[in-house]
Amino acid sequence: MAASSPSSLTPPSVPMELHAGNRDRLVAAVRGHLSASGRPPRGLVLLQDIASGQSILFAPRLPAEYAVWMGEIKPLSYFKDTYKVDMVFYVDEIAQVVQDRFRDHGKPLLFLLHGKNTDSGNFSKPASFEGMEKFDTDLTTLHPILTECRVIKSDLELAIIQYANDISSEAHIEVMRQARPGMKEYQLESIFLHHVYMYGGCRHCSYTCICATGDNSAVLHYGHAAAPNDRTLNDGDMALMDMGAEYQFYGSDITCSYPINGKFNSSQIIIYNAVLKAHNAVISHMRPGVNYLEMHKLAERAILESLRKEQILQGDVDDMMAQRLGAVFMPHGLGHLLGIDTHDPGGYPEGLERPKEPGLSSLRTTRELKEGMVITVEPGCYFIDTLLTKARDDPISSKFFNWQELEKYKSFGGVRIESDVYVTAQGCRNLTNCPRETWEIEAVMAGAPWPLPASGSTVAAAAENGVPKASS
Amino acid sequence: MAASSPSSLTPPSVPMELHAGNRDRLVAAVRGHLSASGRPPRGLVLLQDIASGQSILFAPRLPAEYAVWMGEIKPLSYFKDTYKVDMVFYVDEIAQVVQDRFRDHGKPLLFLLHGKNTDSGNFSKPASFEGMEKFDTDLTTLHPILTECRVIKSDLELAIIQYANDISSEAHIEVMRQARPGMKEYQLESIFLHHVYMYGGCRHCSYTCICATGDNSAVLHYGHAAAPNDRTLNDGDMALMDMGAEYQFYGSDITCSYPINGKFNSSQIIIYNAVLKAHNAVISHMRPGVNYLEMHKLAERAILESLRKEQILQGDVDDMMAQRLGAVFMPHGLGHLLGIDTHDPGGYPEGLERPKEPGLSSLRTTRELKEGMVITVEPGCYFIDTLLTKARDDPISSKFFNWQELEKYKSFGGVRIESDVYVTAQGCRNLTNCPRETWEIEAVMAGAPWPLPASGSTVAAAAENGVPKASS
Repeated sequence: MAASSPSSLTPPSVPMELHAGNRDRLVAAVRGHLSASGRPPRGLVLLQDIASGQSILFAPRLPAEYAVWMGEIKPLSYFKDTYKVDMVFYVDEIAQVVQDRFRDHGKPLLFLLHGKNTDSGNFSKPASFEGMEKFDTDLTTLHPILTECRVIKSDLELAIIQYANDISSEAHIEVMRQARPGMKEYQLESIFLHHVYMYGGCRHCSYTCICATGDNSAVLHYGHAAAPNDRTLNDGDMALMDMGAEYQFYGSDITCSYPINGKFNSSQIIIYNAVLKAHNAVISHMRPGVNYLEMHKLAERAILESLRKEQILQGDVDDMMAQRLGAVFMPHGLGHLLGIDTHDPGGYPEGLERPKEPGLSSLRTTRELKEGMVITVEPGCYFIDTLLTKARDDPISSKFFNWQELEKYKSFGGVRIESDVYVTAQGCRNLTNCPRETWEIEAVMAGAPWPLPASGSTVAAAAENGVPKASS
Repeated sequence: MAASSPSSLTPPSVPMELHAGNRDRLVAAVRGHLSASGRPPRGLVLLQDIASGQSILFAPRLPAEYAVWMGEIKPLSYFKDTYKVDMVFYVDEIAQVVQDRFRDHGKPLLFLLHGKNTDSGNFSKPASFEGMEKFDTDLTTLHPILTECRVIKSDLELAIIQYANDISSEAHIEVMRQARPGMKEYQLESIFLHHVYMYGGCRHCSYTCICATGDNSAVLHYGHAAAPNDRTLNDGDMALMDMGAEYQFYGSDITCSYPINGKFNSSQIIIYNAVLKAHNAVISHMRPGVNYLEMHKLAERAILESLRKEQILQGDVDDMMAQRLGAVFMPHGLGHLLGIDTHDPGGYPEGLERPKEPGLSSLRTTRELKEGMVITVEPGCYFIDTLLTKARDDPISSKFFNWQELEKYKSFGGVRIESDVYVTAQGCRNLTNCPRETWEIEAVMAGAPWPLPASGSTVAAAAENGVPKASS
């Protein structure tokens, strides 16, 4: 490690017990399901290349040239030790191994992973191997059970997600400090990527970095190949930086919004604080049993109330809610489950329907929160031409807007504040640690250390049970 | 741009005439082919989403929500102006547009891109659209012609490849300067990626970075997901850094080898100079008409001669060549065409067979060089256990080795030196500009600027006609 590391972190080693524990949880869940549905507790969970009952790992048999081009060919014992499984064989031995070991229970039953990811709409491809026709297969049981296992994070998983949050929070601060008018958006991306890899060992991010400034911050998924963070930063721009590193397959997903020149102007303070109020209100209400659809509406209401207070909107907030006006300013959902996938599965288990209304239809889960979930809280407020035009054209919506006042925000773009939050038994814990108050952001951008040095007058109370920490 | 940029470069804008020129070259080549084979000069070249005769671009028709999530929906005129094409329509209009405009020549004929990439072994997927059954299609004519067009680079293409080489050469030097024992290989990768993106605007590299140190430098394609540059650098290690940035789709592919501690020891000098001699010998011989198989053998011979001189090998070098001993130390090919693909197509046009012998079978082209080709020159010398064991077990090969001397190189790893070379009318030009002589590397690693300040005694003569430049 270079002498003058700007990071206080070191990439942690991840114990393979994490995966062993996950396998145990899955097997217990499958056993519980079979027992509850009166089925015999038999069968094998076969994931692509992996069968588990006892845990048996099937590794590919590599050709001799692999050693020349790709690296040492490891013996099977290496995989057994490394991945903490009970047995290891080659992939081409699956049929034989399973038959030999499980035929005394009759024709072995294979539980295969096949089902729709409610977030991406894609189907997982069930494992297959030569000789599979000799087995009974079950394509429906495993998917919902495995998905549900993934919804609740173990402590070992949480530790990695926390680390990904730590290094990403630090990298966001590094970007904040280096941002200057005249730079390109992609230079902010490069600073982030470098920090999380150089000092955090994170080779990949959970998703393509969104480094949106000015107008671009009103484009929700800016940063993609056709809009590759290539704008020049101007004095007076807001920046919306949505970036999160991945470590050992577990991700983070963090958004910071701030003025490029380091100083909020009056309209930036108004919109930023509207979103921060929503962000904090949600976190202070999160606890097991709370429905995430209600949290989404809570965020919408907080934003609408702020906009009304500032006379950007007018009329009754309940009426605005009924008219789904929140979706004009926040057309995306409040958040999503986070884990191995950035949009982790399990948002809509069978029986839970996705809402149809504007804004709510984008919400990636309407579940009740449970202890052990990790979910993003990412309210936003954007001034999106097409949506405002649509609202203006609608006689019922239109009357809620003070169009003259709105004119001031025409090129504002948008603000999003996103934290990754862990649901505890009594409330929740924010895993993200970035400056959030406007004065904190201004101080850090001006060179202050983070966390800010303690001072009675500026540090908000850090409270338990879900109230966001001001500076810890 | 931040004030203290460690780069002398600025990302250039790329004129769309580059693509217009490429289309013209393709159309001329297809016309030439049709005429030479007595076929009428009619038909349309249809690439995925692109038809060209006159050049007609078909753009996707985007849904209204695109504006909210991905960005502004551009009018068709934007694409016409930006991409310098004659006309633009929507993709769903292809059948109608083509029929309307070309039916007076009878049933329109579509030339589709379908054929095998001799490097990857993959087949390109021909374009298709609804209503295609109303047209005649030709699946065989286009692929070899388009491939051949790509073999020869235009000046505008060359300028981008030169830029990718410039920024990557500079980034290699930055890595060299920061490398220290105790760092992780991936930190060198991160420094490279950051330099080419932050200062060069290169969001992507041409391939996964190979940051191999110690033993790992004998693994030809180290750095992949299962061997992710995660070793700690030791004092005394050689580093083999194979990294190249991509700019506007055109790549670079550069390898530098050097001691991590900044000072070559005696065995490192021996192996490094053996490879450098091969690298320089090839470049000094490259010119139109020279066959690349001969260049590969020239490199092998240079390395074998050096190893013989150092008494690592013994016996007659011609006999070693006949026994294919070069492939023990350099099991990969000397180089490959470079362009939009890192391994650009066209290495084996129809009629040219890939050699079968060890080492030669890995050569990605055995063509005669032509003016306008860009090709890598990347000789290497590796001490690979499995290959040495095989050679030792073979009674004919074994006698060429001084096994006692070889023992000293057991954990050496390997050396590769790779430059991207443009074939000119009379010789060639090295597009890569990294320190190559051992003293140059040591000076730069110790903090000297690059190019080294001129000094009669240390700067080798920069010559024309293919002799590598020492420091320009």
